[in-house]
Amino acid sequence: MRAAILTGLKTIEIVERPVADPAKGEVALAINAVGICGSDLAYWAQGVAGGFKKLDFSAEGLCKGYCGQMGHECAGTVIAVGEGVDSLVVGDRVALEPGVPCGTCVQHCRKGRYNLCKSMRFIGSAVNEVPGAMVTRFNHPAAFCYKLPTHISLDEGAMFEPLCVALQAVRRARVGIAMRVLITGAGPIGLMTLLAAKAAGATVLAITDMVDAKLVVARTLGATYTFKANTPNLVSVAQQAVGGEFDVTFECSGVVPALDLCVSATGSGGVLCVVANYKADEAGRTPVRLQELARREIDLVGVYRYCNLYPTALELVSSGAVNLKPLISRKFSLEQAGHAFEYFATGEPIKVLITPNEAAGDDGCKPCEFDEVSLEKAREFGV
Amino acid sequence: MRAAILTGLKTIEIVERPVADPAKGEVALAINAVGICGSDLAYWAQGVAGGFKKLDFSAEGLCKGYCGQMGHECAGTVIAVGEGVDSLVVGDRVALEPGVPCGTCVQHCRKGRYNLCKSMRFIGSAVNEVPGAMVTRFNHPAAFCYKLPTHISLDEGAMFEPLCVALQAVRRARVGIAMRVLITGAGPIGLMTLLAAKAAGATVLAITDMVDAKLVVARTLGATYTFKANTPNLVSVAQQAVGGEFDVTFECSGVVPALDLCVSATGSGGVLCVVANYKADEAGRTPVRLQELARREIDLVGVYRYCNLYPTALELVSSGAVNLKPLISRKFSLEQAGHAFEYFATGEPIKVLITPNEAAGDDGCKPCEFDEVSLEKAREFGV
Amino acid sequence: MRAAILTGLKTIEIVERPVADPAKGEVALAINAVGICGSDLAYWAQGVAGGFKKLDFSAEGLCKGYCGQMGHECAGTVIAVGEGVDSLVVGDRVALEPGVPCGTCVQHCRKGRYNLCKSMRFIGSAVNEVPGAMVTRFNHPAAFCYKLPTHISLDEGAMFEPLCVALQAVRRARVGIAMRVLITGAGPIGLMTLLAAKAAGATVLAITDMVDAKLVVARTLGATYTFKANTPNLVSVAQQAVGGEFDVTFECSGVVPALDLCVSATGSGGVLCVVANYKADEAGRTPVRLQELARREIDLVGVYRYCNLYPTALELVSSGAVNLKPLISRKFSLEQAGHAFEYFATGEPIKVLITPNEAAGDDGCKPCEFDEVSLEKAREFGV
Amino acid sequence: MRAAILTGLKTIEIVERPVADPAKGEVALAINAVGICGSDLAYWAQGVAGGFKKLDFSAEGLCKGYCGQMGHECAGTVIAVGEGVDSLVVGDRVALEPGVPCGTCVQHCRKGRYNLCKSMRFIGSAVNEVPGAMVTRFNHPAAFCYKLPTHISLDEGAMFEPLCVALQAVRRARVGIAMRVLITGAGPIGLMTLLAAKAAGATVLAITDMVDAKLVVARTLGATYTFKANTPNLVSVAQQAVGGEFDVTFECSGVVPALDLCVSATGSGGVLCVVANYKADEAGRTPVRLQELARREIDLVGVYRYCNLYPTALELVSSGAVNLKPLISRKFSLEQAGHAFEYFATGEPIKVLITPNEAAGDDGCKPCEFDEVSLEKAREFGV
Repeated sequence: MRAAILTGLKTIEIVERPVADPAKGEVALAINAVGICGSDLAYWAQGVAGGFKKLDFSAEGLCKGYCGQMGHECAGTVIAVGEGVDSLVVGDRVALEPGVPCGTCVQHCRKGRYNLCKSMRFIGSAVNEVPGAMVTRFNHPAAFCYKLPTHISLDEGAMFEPLCVALQAVRRARVGIAMRVLITGAGPIGLMTLLAAKAAGATVLAITDMVDAKLVVARTLGATYTFKANTPNLVSVAQQAVGGEFDVTFECSGVVPALDLCVSATGSGGVLCVVANYKADEAGRTPVRLQELARREIDLVGVYRYCNLYPTALELVSSGAVNLKPLISRKFSLEQAGHAFEYFATGEPIKVLITPNEAAGDDGCKPCEFDEVSLEKAREFGV
Repeated sequence: MRAAILTGLKTIEIVERPVADPAKGEVALAINAVGICGSDLAYWAQGVAGGFKKLDFSAEGLCKGYCGQMGHECAGTVIAVGEGVDSLVVGDRVALEPGVPCGTCVQHCRKGRYNLCKSMRFIGSAVNEVPGAMVTRFNHPAAFCYKLPTHISLDEGAMFEPLCVALQAVRRARVGIAMRVLITGAGPIGLMTLLAAKAAGATVLAITDMVDAKLVVARTLGATYTFKANTPNLVSVAQQAVGGEFDVTFECSGVVPALDLCVSATGSGGVLCVVANYKADEAGRTPVRLQELARREIDLVGVYRYCNLYPTALELVSSGAVNLKPLISRKFSLEQAGHAFEYFATGEPIKVLITPNEAAGDDGCKPCEFDEVSLEKAREFGV
Repeated sequence: MRAAILTGLKTIEIVERPVADPAKGEVALAINAVGICGSDLAYWAQGVAGGFKKLDFSAEGLCKGYCGQMGHECAGTVIAVGEGVDSLVVGDRVALEPGVPCGTCVQHCRKGRYNLCKSMRFIGSAVNEVPGAMVTRFNHPAAFCYKLPTHISLDEGAMFEPLCVALQAVRRARVGIAMRVLITGAGPIGLMTLLAAKAAGATVLAITDMVDAKLVVARTLGATYTFKANTPNLVSVAQQAVGGEFDVTFECSGVVPALDLCVSATGSGGVLCVVANYKADEAGRTPVRLQELARREIDLVGVYRYCNLYPTALELVSSGAVNLKPLISRKFSLEQAGHAFEYFATGEPIKVLITPNEAAGDDGCKPCEFDEVSLEKAREFGV
Repeated sequence: MRAAILTGLKTIEIVERPVADPAKGEVALAINAVGICGSDLAYWAQGVAGGFKKLDFSAEGLCKGYCGQMGHECAGTVIAVGEGVDSLVVGDRVALEPGVPCGTCVQHCRKGRYNLCKSMRFIGSAVNEVPGAMVTRFNHPAAFCYKLPTHISLDEGAMFEPLCVALQAVRRARVGIAMRVLITGAGPIGLMTLLAAKAAGATVLAITDMVDAKLVVARTLGATYTFKANTPNLVSVAQQAVGGEFDVTFECSGVVPALDLCVSATGSGGVLCVVANYKADEAGRTPVRLQELARREIDLVGVYRYCNLYPTALELVSSGAVNLKPLISRKFSLEQAGHAFEYFATGEPIKVLITPNEAAGDDGCKPCEFDEVSLEKAREFGV
């Protein structure tokens, strides 16, 4: 089988790797679609992501576990079934939940918050040293493969993963019916959070960004208010527009001024959910308006991956409550993986997919439907 | 001013009553629309509702407080403003929250569950002995009047009240994103619950009834599955159709077999929310499948009115997340109030409104848009 | 090894059974103490418990799985360690959590409510057809064995199981700081619930029973108020004594009048937790004051075993927050198992333990320290 | 009547003020005990507290509302009753809840979080410009006076206020049965939090401070582990001592390194509750280890006063679950108020009370019972 391997900064090579039979409880999958995550991009561009340890690109470094084999947003087709698997058969199309927890630890798994499991095996993660699915063929536990109904495409299945991050944010922030939500940052995770918050019942969906085109996309996805991030007095402008304080704010841009803004915009007793990463001092500290948070009893919560949300993602996409298709900017073959990263690095696309198996019937390279968004269109939306 | 008064079983008289100025903190309202509630109907038909005390139609009985003056689902226009009111001005169109709690009791009001306040003054309630709003002019505390934006009609405003009951049910039952919900009974409250559950993020919305036409209405309001209540093996039929057990069930029909069905249909760890009333023995007991509830840790919760939900109702209708208009079956003038009750008593309409002030521009008597629903149409929906 | 087997109604035989090596992940245990549960007693006395299926005492019936081998409240000493076990070593003294869930089901295990797992293997359960631990030697997964510190006896370890049922009740009922709690029924589970509610912060701990001696025991365990169950106007008497309505009530007696009483005694917005079993009609229904529950928004919750509570039980006993020792009425050797059941069937003892291995240093038959409680002593406590 | 007035930095004068009759709904109280809060001390020492606006000691400044009249931790005896008060009579001894919310605002009061009310009138608060109770006679709404049973002293009643802050922290942090809790800082609020956490069911109660004597006090109040704040590798030392990570940490010292420590010491999925105030940059920001908080899904929550907790405080003290008496370091007469502040400013005492009415039978100046704590005693406790 073939794999796209990160062998150095901004260097991806396609290599042949031996095929292994699925172990007990596993299925073998032809990988049809695998998305590029922001953390993948960070490793590709800088060799490090979000404060975790820096990649060692030496031969020994790459040989340990992970091996530069990225990819955790993925979907595939069952091509073989291991011993004891009765939930799936050859031909089933599935979305993969990339993190496999121990399932028995008293602190986290037994309590239902398995994303916090200290023995988590998360595929394509440099931290966990487990190889990823940016490959043609991959083995994974059947219990963490979710069968897709025929009306959900494998491309959509690959995007369940970032959707689950957004769903975890929405759950952690306790978004509910008729709430007012503000999202700072209309990148992939900000937009996913928008979709998730809407599905959770929020009716006021405000979002900010510096880029007009992204705000236009946000509008098409259901944002009810969009604001340029550099609007003077943004908090009062936004609160006046929506008719009050926000119940929940999501910081998805990763800059401290946006974090400040979220503190100010959140109503007393509300929730500020931190989804992005921030620059930190040597002790890992980021400046936060702590006094105001405390004095207005705003809960500050963060998000680490997700738990128990693949069935939710599947139901939302299956029922039509969430439409992920507009988020696909372009698709690339496995051999074009390097180009895919370069394209994603421009910051323009929302979601870039790699399709390692032609059998999935992908077109290799589809232009992003939002590339052409003009300022005219932006003005039409009142951005 | 004129009032529609229940002076005996199935007897409504229009009487003149003196006009009182609004007290401190109150506004005087021209009542534009007032709905007939199931409990109003019960008092009209039987002189008693839901196990509460029977009405005394004697002169002395009627003179105490309530006086047979029904009406608590209402909206109106501010025509005068009492001392100290600065939140409203003459001309404002408002929905009235009919229950005014004490606001200071340690047990309930201060904790935010003011619907449980033992000193609640609930208008049009025989229990609380407070006159209702089935009148041309009515005084009410400004703090419990919610201003309607221009795109919400007063008819819709009158229906916030039953919507709030449904919203309370949905909150008590902890309905959330991507949940599977079953509602037994497609009467007014069942349909309101359907709308509320959908707004809260539920994606599987199944509902049962004995009457095809009501199931057709349910479909038009967003039900994703409808079942005739006498379907053999209904629990397994429904669970198979929706792909699993229900997270939450709402019993809105008031019969014990439906209650049994809800127990069976609810998944372990789920919630069964009782919205209807039931026949009871002399000690007030209704037979419940308690053992199964306990053994599968299904929470049984009930609903008593609502609290803190008028702003939610307003936001849902204003944003378009909930459309109440299709629920209006017909409107009557105050003088036609007796006919309105007779029509509502047929069981066919969903919501019947009385419009005491012509100034509101009502047409007096509009035919129910669902009256004509044929079996053909029912079949078209697959009912 | 030897086992105490239920071979017919009120008939227990001691039989030899072959010894099996511990499987992968298991440990072999010398069982030091095993308590008799109310459900064990029901099978012994009537061949059936709590609405589950009746035992088949024929040769074929007993040979299927469970085999009449009761016992799930137990503690033992590790005498051998299976493959892959590194959390325990020979000589460790452990409490056994008797239910072993599948650990992977999406509906329950992954969400942290593994007590609802449909594939639960619960030892000594006629329902689940898994043999129990009323034996000299037993194999069990190491992951469900909790090491006891030296200051906790194996007798106490055996009682973690019923304590966990009480802890589950207290959690389901959301007992917290400074709450007023009423418990109807001062049997083993009622008393365990008393201990658990106290540990959870409840300060008003009222309990009822028909038997003075049990109320005296309750006092020694921390009850702040005790009432004879036949006290006239018990609800108002109790509410007046404690200074208000109860936040939470636990029904632990299994009779409908006590259930009625709990409904009345619970404050609006409170919780009624059903811990006992009730007589039911052929459809499994028990009469419940449903209207009042709903109208006062009292949540009705039940309890099925427990999840994630063995560490809690261990911490509570270890810290001294809960003292289980006074609950041990008498201990019997394995050979005396029949006598143990007869003694327990008198209804006098709280907890009866069987100690299959003399190596544990048990005295075989200790008189219950509460047997001698006189009416004088009861009066002294003001019962 | 006489009042202790802050007329300049470290300057308190006793002045005569006119007596006002209690208004409708109010009672007039002889103030028996009023504690000095850390914020009172900050105004006295620096003219400012916790980032709020600096006091203006000019004649005009002091004349506006608050007038330098501090005091909000207080208890008194009813000496007159205003119109419409039927809950209290002359002679009743009461604890005063100092914050009186509007009671009707839709955002906070109606939802039960009245501490967040934007129209709060909080006595003795420079921010809210309402005069305080460091006086001989004071009027207050009866609805916010809680009658003390005879076995609770007025001194204890005055300390309900800081206890409520601790109870709010414990509630916000969701402390419950058998939890492991760490408190950094054994000052008055740290010690109150210790008492509150214990009452809420926590069994592991660890606390840190730089001062041995304070740790000794903590031990006598129920701390199960005490650590010098400068212990090397404190997180691992503490976690090893208590047998695991902490479920909840409370930062009560106000320094950033302690905040860092709390982040590290809290288990994944736990809660870090910020009770103290911190230095901030000009934008109000304090450095926080945000990335780690997010990555381990630790909720960061703060505390602003309290709501619905006076009845809890009363019940805890009444039942003996919390003993506030050991916290009284010394008592002073109103005339000695300046000395009281000087003594409190030494940092040695826990709680200093001023007793404006001799009628309360106070001794004027009692030595702190912990003043004499020697290092010998500290060592005896293993500090």
